Amino acid sequence: MTKAIKCDSSGIRAIKDAMETLSGNWKLPILFSLSGGAKRFKEITREVEGISDKMLSKELKNLETNHLVKRTVYETFPPTVEYEITEHAETLFEVMKALRDWGQNHRKKIIGK
Amino acid sequence: MTKAIKCDSSGIRAIKDAMETLSGNWKLPILFSLSGGAKRFKEITREVEGISDKMLSKELKNLETNHLVKRTVYETFPPTVEYEITEHAETLFEVMKALRDWGQNHRKKIIGK
Repeated sequence: MTKAIKCDSSGIRAIKDAMETLSGNWKLPILFSLSGGAKRFKEITREVEGISDKMLSKELKNLETNHLVKRTVYETFPPTVEYEITEHAETLFEVMKALRDWGQNHRKKIIGK
Repeated sequence: MTKAIKCDSSGIRAIKDAMETLSGNWKLPILFSLSGGAKRFKEITREVEGISDKMLSKELKNLETNHLVKRTVYETFPPTVEYEITEHAETLFEVMKALRDWGQNHRKKIIGK
């Protein structure tokens, strides 16, 4: 019999809320890239393979609205902009680690490498 | 300084793989509902608030392809069909628990309840 975890409607709603906030394939990889420390736009595009500038800029704005990313503009000439994850986003580390481990395990199961 | 977790390109790809497999707002809530044990179609639609029959049937097919759900047809009259999560899907429990806890915490942070 499958090992059950307590499944109730508030649990289902919480998971749906989380998935809606983290929706799409890019938000968590961006946060994971920023979990290594503050980065500039170009550094993030280099680390998150395959993301377009347009998509990254859209997702960064969304992550800012959800209090997950902080944007800082430095008064250099020309001005430089850095992105870093907020303390609230750090609470996502458990989710990121669980997804990373599951993703590696799933890839081995499905395509055997 | 933010508490860093080891961020490398294989970690980013693994998270992207996981998010692509679990994409959309419904797959994890469906799996979470099935984590309470095998269920029939109508039972799942009752538990996963707001999901349409069309969406549930599409997502169940996708979850079967990804070895996450098993479909069993019983030779009753009329035949009855049950869905249950596979052992492979049980490895998602950590992800589901982390997302549920984060979803509840995020809801409090963003809308204060």
